[in-house]
Amino acid sequence: MMQLIRPIWEFLILILANLLSQAPAMKMPGFYPYPMPYYTSYCLSWRVGVEANNVRYFHTVPPQCVTYIENYMLGGQYNSDVGVVIQQIFAYLDETVPSDDGKDAWIFDVDDTCLSNVMYYGNKRFGGVPYDPMSFKSWAERGMCPAIPAVLGLYRRLLQSGYKVFLITGRDEVTLRLSTTQNLFMQGFLGYEKLIMRNPLYRGMGAAMFKSSMRKQLVDEGYRIRGNIGDQWSDLMGDCSGDRTFKLPNPMYFVP
Amino acid sequence: MMQLIRPIWEFLILILANLLSQAPAMKMPGFYPYPMPYYTSYCLSWRVGVEANNVRYFHTVPPQCVTYIENYMLGGQYNSDVGVVIQQIFAYLDETVPSDDGKDAWIFDVDDTCLSNVMYYGNKRFGGVPYDPMSFKSWAERGMCPAIPAVLGLYRRLLQSGYKVFLITGRDEVTLRLSTTQNLFMQGFLGYEKLIMRNPLYRGMGAAMFKSSMRKQLVDEGYRIRGNIGDQWSDLMGDCSGDRTFKLPNPMYFVP
Repeated sequence: MMQLIRPIWEFLILILANLLSQAPAMKMPGFYPYPMPYYTSYCLSWRVGVEANNVRYFHTVPPQCVTYIENYMLGGQYNSDVGVVIQQIFAYLDETVPSDDGKDAWIFDVDDTCLSNVMYYGNKRFGGVPYDPMSFKSWAERGMCPAIPAVLGLYRRLLQSGYKVFLITGRDEVTLRLSTTQNLFMQGFLGYEKLIMRNPLYRGMGAAMFKSSMRKQLVDEGYRIRGNIGDQWSDLMGDCSGDRTFKLPNPMYFVP
Repeated sequence: MMQLIRPIWEFLILILANLLSQAPAMKMPGFYPYPMPYYTSYCLSWRVGVEANNVRYFHTVPPQCVTYIENYMLGGQYNSDVGVVIQQIFAYLDETVPSDDGKDAWIFDVDDTCLSNVMYYGNKRFGGVPYDPMSFKSWAERGMCPAIPAVLGLYRRLLQSGYKVFLITGRDEVTLRLSTTQNLFMQGFLGYEKLIMRNPLYRGMGAAMFKSSMRKQLVDEGYRIRGNIGDQWSDLMGDCSGDRTFKLPNPMYFVP
């Protein structure tokens, strides 16, 4: 008889211990009975680190994340992320009206802001190989970059609302002005106030400093920078960055 | 005979058309034959938007994202994201040695930087209900917030390396100093230079401005702020933000 009762007791104690142990577990992070399994991903953490400006100065996408970044860029999540940024900007624009002196301005970066280089990076393992300036120049000279549709929508809304739009790009003034203006025109980016490119005086200067200097000149001319959108933190940092800045996703490369 | 040949021809033409159509499709973003399906998520886009400082001034987590955020916080991805931030800081520290004048400083925020409030927010639908200052004060008075282990590791490494650590928090000096110092002590945050809390003079001031003022005072005292870590952009923006800033994830609430 005792041989039978002991296992039953042990079983009951186990159940009781289990029930009791759930009470503190309910309050312990990491042991919380969450309703769905959530699979952790180092590559997602890395990508969020890039967007939050924690991960900097990387030369290539980590090798184990190349396929992840490819899926991210082409599988829809990148477009979803861009969409949420533009949605936030539209909500911000709903709250403000530009004054009628023509001095309310917005700044746009060009590469991977107005124009997409995803087709180019598709041949560069989505950032899995180091940046190759000559090869990128050949690509840019072709003037075949497609518009990022959601950004084009924003651009048109800003012009319709009466903002002045300035495009500021690190692309070289001397070699790439013609192909860039043609590319922008063909993709529907018409009516901007000025396309500011990197002239020989600014060669070798970091993007953040170059772009700050250009914005400073606009502010000195009396423009009020109401917003500033780019895919790199170097588009958005430094002096005269604007009343609000918006970071578009780009886990493929880092421009200091 | 013709009746038999026509379907064969049509079939061959279809195959040829299909083969030809794959060439441009290979180069079209969105039609790229990516190796794995990637499921898009609005809530992931929203969360990345918070981390990138695009999504601001939100009062609650969007209702459709409450379960997503719960899974994110408790399912491991949050811990993974924190881990990557700390990894980046360790890599940064490997490159620098503090000077021996004792003036190299690091700034830490307290809530959801040193100490976790996930247990508290577990009862607040992980940010799905509006912030309740009275209820949060009761929680903070209990002094029961657990350390975020990876941040504690960073904290210890900084002290060992010879940095001075300053904790700057928006918690109220008068009502919460005792419970906060006890909580920090119990969780292993010992040896900091100063715990700077919000005294009555700064009540009602935005966190970014309050924290900037406190950092400015440290810089005026001769400290060089080598790094600054917090879970809110308002911890990291404004004057004297530090040589590098690090944003810890927090999609549960927004402090302006």
